[in-house]
Amino acid sequence: MPMSTNGNVSDNMEPSDLNRTLKEGNMQKILRINTKEKTFTVEQPENALSSMGGRGLTSRIILNEVPPTCHALSKFNKLVVAPGLLSGTAAANSGRISVGAKSPLTGGIKESNSGGLVSQKLARLGIKAIVLEDRPDNDAYSLVVIKRDSVEIVPADEYVGLGNYAVIEKLWNKYGKKVGVMCIGPAGEQCLTSASIQFADPKGHAGRAAGRGGLGAVMGSKKIKAIVVDDTGADKIFLADDKAFKTANKRWVEMIKKHPVSGQGLPELGTAILVNLINEAGALPTKNFRSGRFEFAEDISGERMVELIKKRGGVIREGCHPGCIIHCSQAYHDKEGRYVTSGMEYETIWAFGAHTLIKDLDDIALMDRLCDDIGVDTIEMGVAIGIAMEGGLIPWGDGKAAIDLLKKVGTDAPLGRIIGNGAAFTGQAFGIDRVPVVKRQAFPAYDPRSVKGVGVTYATSPMGADHTAGYAVCQNVLKVGGDVDPLKKEGNVEVSKNLQIATAAIDASGICLFTAFPVLDNEDGVQTIVSLINARYGINMTPNDFLDLGISILKDEHAFNKGAGFTKADDRMPDFFAEPLPPHNTTWDFTDEELQQVKM
Amino acid sequence: MPMSTNGNVSDNMEPSDLNRTLKEGNMQKILRINTKEKTFTVEQPENALSSMGGRGLTSRIILNEVPPTCHALSKFNKLVVAPGLLSGTAAANSGRISVGAKSPLTGGIKESNSGGLVSQKLARLGIKAIVLEDRPDNDAYSLVVIKRDSVEIVPADEYVGLGNYAVIEKLWNKYGKKVGVMCIGPAGEQCLTSASIQFADPKGHAGRAAGRGGLGAVMGSKKIKAIVVDDTGADKIFLADDKAFKTANKRWVEMIKKHPVSGQGLPELGTAILVNLINEAGALPTKNFRSGRFEFAEDISGERMVELIKKRGGVIREGCHPGCIIHCSQAYHDKEGRYVTSGMEYETIWAFGAHTLIKDLDDIALMDRLCDDIGVDTIEMGVAIGIAMEGGLIPWGDGKAAIDLLKKVGTDAPLGRIIGNGAAFTGQAFGIDRVPVVKRQAFPAYDPRSVKGVGVTYATSPMGADHTAGYAVCQNVLKVGGDVDPLKKEGNVEVSKNLQIATAAIDASGICLFTAFPVLDNEDGVQTIVSLINARYGINMTPNDFLDLGISILKDEHAFNKGAGFTKADDRMPDFFAEPLPPHNTTWDFTDEELQQVKM
Repeated sequence: MPMSTNGNVSDNMEPSDLNRTLKEGNMQKILRINTKEKTFTVEQPENALSSMGGRGLTSRIILNEVPPTCHALSKFNKLVVAPGLLSGTAAANSGRISVGAKSPLTGGIKESNSGGLVSQKLARLGIKAIVLEDRPDNDAYSLVVIKRDSVEIVPADEYVGLGNYAVIEKLWNKYGKKVGVMCIGPAGEQCLTSASIQFADPKGHAGRAAGRGGLGAVMGSKKIKAIVVDDTGADKIFLADDKAFKTANKRWVEMIKKHPVSGQGLPELGTAILVNLINEAGALPTKNFRSGRFEFAEDISGERMVELIKKRGGVIREGCHPGCIIHCSQAYHDKEGRYVTSGMEYETIWAFGAHTLIKDLDDIALMDRLCDDIGVDTIEMGVAIGIAMEGGLIPWGDGKAAIDLLKKVGTDAPLGRIIGNGAAFTGQAFGIDRVPVVKRQAFPAYDPRSVKGVGVTYATSPMGADHTAGYAVCQNVLKVGGDVDPLKKEGNVEVSKNLQIATAAIDASGICLFTAFPVLDNEDGVQTIVSLINARYGINMTPNDFLDLGISILKDEHAFNKGAGFTKADDRMPDFFAEPLPPHNTTWDFTDEELQQVKM
Repeated sequence: MPMSTNGNVSDNMEPSDLNRTLKEGNMQKILRINTKEKTFTVEQPENALSSMGGRGLTSRIILNEVPPTCHALSKFNKLVVAPGLLSGTAAANSGRISVGAKSPLTGGIKESNSGGLVSQKLARLGIKAIVLEDRPDNDAYSLVVIKRDSVEIVPADEYVGLGNYAVIEKLWNKYGKKVGVMCIGPAGEQCLTSASIQFADPKGHAGRAAGRGGLGAVMGSKKIKAIVVDDTGADKIFLADDKAFKTANKRWVEMIKKHPVSGQGLPELGTAILVNLINEAGALPTKNFRSGRFEFAEDISGERMVELIKKRGGVIREGCHPGCIIHCSQAYHDKEGRYVTSGMEYETIWAFGAHTLIKDLDDIALMDRLCDDIGVDTIEMGVAIGIAMEGGLIPWGDGKAAIDLLKKVGTDAPLGRIIGNGAAFTGQAFGIDRVPVVKRQAFPAYDPRSVKGVGVTYATSPMGADHTAGYAVCQNVLKVGGDVDPLKKEGNVEVSKNLQIATAAIDASGICLFTAFPVLDNEDGVQTIVSLINARYGINMTPNDFLDLGISILKDEHAFNKGAGFTKADDRMPDFFAEPLPPHNTTWDFTDEELQQVKM
C-alpha cells in the first residue's frame, strides 16, 4: 500500500520511515497531527511517557505541552487521544479510550472517557496517542484516516454540518463497516463548551461519548470533523508473557461475572438500575436539587426502561466496545419499534428526567439521541434545560418544550448557543444563581448532601463535578468496597480520595470503570489488573505501583489546574447546597480545609 | 414630617431614633437596607470605617461582609453606595460616587464610579454609605426613597420594565426635578452581567453610569429598581476649618482651570479629544485589536463631534454633577436637532466605532443612548458587538445591524441575553477565542501593546481591564506627570503601580479622576486634596497618608479577590496580544513576574 500523507509529509521524516514506524504496531508510537499544516509526525515517546497510557498519557502530555493559561480554543491547546495500557489486548473490558485537553468548559485539565472501537484499534496499530496540534486559519474541515500503513488528512467537506449518526454511517459506507470512528456534530463545529466527541459503537451507532468538558469544541476548533481508525492488517498485540496473561484474564473475567453489580445488575437493567436505588436513598436530585426524591421515579426507572425495550423489540445487554463482558448498554426503540438511541445512562435519564420533572421515558430517549447526534454532553444539556426552566423559559416537566429547545443546539438559533454552552452559561444568560456546577461543570445525578462521598469528589476532582472521578456511591449507597454513611461527613473525604486515586489508575489502564465494583470487593482485584499489565509489558508493577500511578496522574492534573489559576476557592459547592435536602434534610457542611485533605 | 418606613421598621430601632439619626446629617451614618424584609437600620460606622469614603468604604465593607466565593447574584452579596470624603462640600469636582459589590462579570471585587446628583445629596444627609443586603424571594420590585427624615421602601411596579430615561422622568415628576436618582433599566432587571446603574445628571438625563462590572445586575437581583435621594432641608455640611477649606479650594479651582487638559482640552472637546490623539499614537484598537490606527478616525473624532453638536444646537461643556468646573460632557443632538444622549465618552465612541469599524457618529450616539436607557455598560456592549462581528453574526462596520442587535438587549430575545452578558460571554457563545478581556471584563479603548502602562493596569487591576484604575495614558501619550515610552516595557510597571495607588485614593475622596491631570503636574497637587480633607474633618492627613489610603484600598481589593480564587493566572493578557500591532508592530511582552510587581 502506498504511503499517503495528503502530500504534506513533515520535514523530519521520509515516507518510508513513516511507513515502517506505523507498521511496527507494538513499538508504541505517538502520532502528532498538525491541523494547520495538515502534516503529521510519528515519534517514539520519551521514557517517562512510554510506561503511561490512557488518562495518564493525556494528562501528562497536556501538562507538559499546553500552557495552562491559554484559551482552550486557541492554537496552543492540544487534543490528546490515548488508548489505555491494556487496550488492544484480550483483557475483558479493556477497550475504553481517554480524550484529554484543556477544557473549554472548566478552564482546567480534562480527561473524558469513552467506549467505542477506536481504543483497541489504535492500540493494535501501536499508537499510544494521537495529538492534534495547532489550528487552521480558515474554516475548512479535515478528516483524519489512520490505517496500518498510512495517515491521511483529507478534506471533510461532505461531512460538515452533519449529525454524528449520519457522519458515522457515511464513513462506514466509505471505509468499511468496522472501522473506528470518533467525530463531532454541529455543536463541536460551533465550539460550544458542552460539545462532545462521539464514538461509533460496534453497531455503528453514535451512542458512545467522551461527553464531558467540551472536548468536542477543542476538536472543532482544530477543524477535525472525524478521525477514522482502520486496523486492518495490524499485527497481533505483543504479549510479554502470553500464559500469565491468559491466567490473569481468566480470573479477571470470573471476578467481573461473579459480582452482583457487574455480573447481574448492570447487564439486566443497565446503569438505569440506579434510578430507583438512588431515589430510595433520597439522593435523586429533583427539580434542580430541591428534593432527593422524585414522585415519578418509577416511570423513568431501569425496570420500566427494560420493560419497554423488551415490549418494543429493542436490545438489552449491549457492550460499548468489543471485549466487554458486562453489557450494560441497550438499544431503546420507540413505540413503533424503531431504533432511537443506545447507551441511555442513568445520569442522562436523571438529567432529562427528575432534574427537569419530565417523566416520559420516550421524551428522555429522544433527547439522549439528539445529544448524541448533535454532539453534546447529556448531563450538561439536561442540567442546562433545568436551569432554563428555573429562569422561566419553558415550564417544568414539559418534555416537548425541552425537546424543541434541545433541537436548537447546533443550529444558528441563539437559544441553542446558550443551552449548548452548558448549565453555568445558561444560568448567567437568565440571571439565575441556583446553578449546580463546580468549576463550571454541571453536577451529575447524585445530590451531594445525601451522598456526601461523591459530593467530595464533585468539589475536589480536577475535572469539575464528575461522578466518575471518584464514585463514592459504591460505599455510600451500594455498599460495595465498604460502608460509609452517605449522610454524615465522617469517612467520606477518605473514601473520595482513595477512589479518585484508584479511578485515575483505572482510567490509565483502558479498563471500564464498572470493573471497579468487583475490584473493590475482591482482595485480588487490583493485583489482577496489575498481573494483566505485567504480562502485557513484561514489567513488575505492584498493586502499590498501580495506586502510585493514580496519585501521579492526579498530581499532574492538579499541577495543570494550579497553573490555570485554580485554588481552593474553586473546590467548593454552590452556596445553595447549604439548604437542607428532603427527605433527609441534610446540608452540605464540609469546610474548605476538610475538602483540601483529598489533595496529594 | 412623619417617619415613614413602609411599615417594616427593624426591631432594634424605634422610628424616633431613626428620625433623629437621619436628621443628624453630619454624624456620618451607614444606612443598611434589607431588601427581603423591606426594613432598614441606620448605624454609626465602626472606627475603622469612619475615616473612609467612596471606594475605600465600598471595598472595605465588601471585604468585611461579603463571602468572596458567593454567587454575585445571591443573597450573600451586598451593593454598597458611598459618596467620597469630600462629597457634599463646595470642593470643586467632588461629587463622584462609588458603587461596589462582588462583580457578577468578573467574579472579583468591583468599584464603579459615577457622576450625578446622589453623591452630594447623600453626603449632605450624613449618609456615608447605603448597603443593600439580602434578596427578595419574589419578583416584586421596590423603590427606595431617602429624605432628610425618612427612608421609604415602596413598591416600584409602575417603573418595572421601563428604560432609565423614563424612570428618571417619572421619578422627577413625582419627587421633584432636582432629587438624586440611581436606577436600573431592563438589563439590570434581567441580571445581565453588563448591566449598569445609571444616575440622573443635573438635567435629569440618564447619561451617567456606574457602568462597569455588572453592578446593575446586583441591584436587579435585590429587586431595587431605583433609589431616590432628596436632601431638602439638610443641614449645611460641617467644615472643621471653614477658612482653611476656602483657601485650599481656591488653589484647587485654580489648578484645575489652569491645566491644559482639565482647563482647556476636556471642556472644549470632551474625552472624545482622545480619538485623534490615540489614533495618532497608533493605539486606537481597530477591528477587534488588529491595528492601532482606524482609517476613519477623523469621522468619529471629538473635533467632528463638537462640530456636529454646534451645528445642531446641542450643548458642549456640561458637568456630570453640580460643582464640576471641568464640564467635559455634552448633549449630542440628531440631524433634526433633537436630544439624543449625554456623556458620550471617548471609550464609548471607540467601542462602537473603531472596534467595530462603524464610522457614523450618529449611529454611535444612538447606541450610547440605548446603553444608558437599557442600562448596560457601553464599553462592554461595543466590545461584545465586535465579537459578534468576529463570529460572523453581523458584518463589520454595519451600524444599523449593530443598533438592531443592541436593541435586543433587555428584551426576551436570546441574542440580547448573549450580548448583554458582555464580551467574554459573547465570545463563548460564538466559539471565538479572540476576545479582549482580563478577568472577563472587556478592554477599554487603548491597545495595551502601544500604551503599555495602561496594559499593565488592565492586567493587574483588581477590577479587571479598566483604564480608569491606573490611567498611564497620561505618561505614555499625554506626557502629563512624566514621560514614559508607551512602546517599551521600561518604567511602565512602576507608572501603573503608582497610578493605581493614587487613583484608589482619589476614588475614596469623591473627586473626579480628571483632576489627576493637574494633580500630577503640580507639586502641591496631592497636598491640596489633603488640605481640603483636613479642613473638612479637622484631621492631620499628610500626602503620604493619602497614598497609604490608596495602598490600603488596593490591599483590601486584592485580599477579596484572593479569597474569590484569583491568582496571577488571572493577571494576564489574552494569548493573541502576542501578535504584533500595526503601525508600531509592538507585542505584549511582560512576564507574569514583572506584572506581579504592581502588587503591594
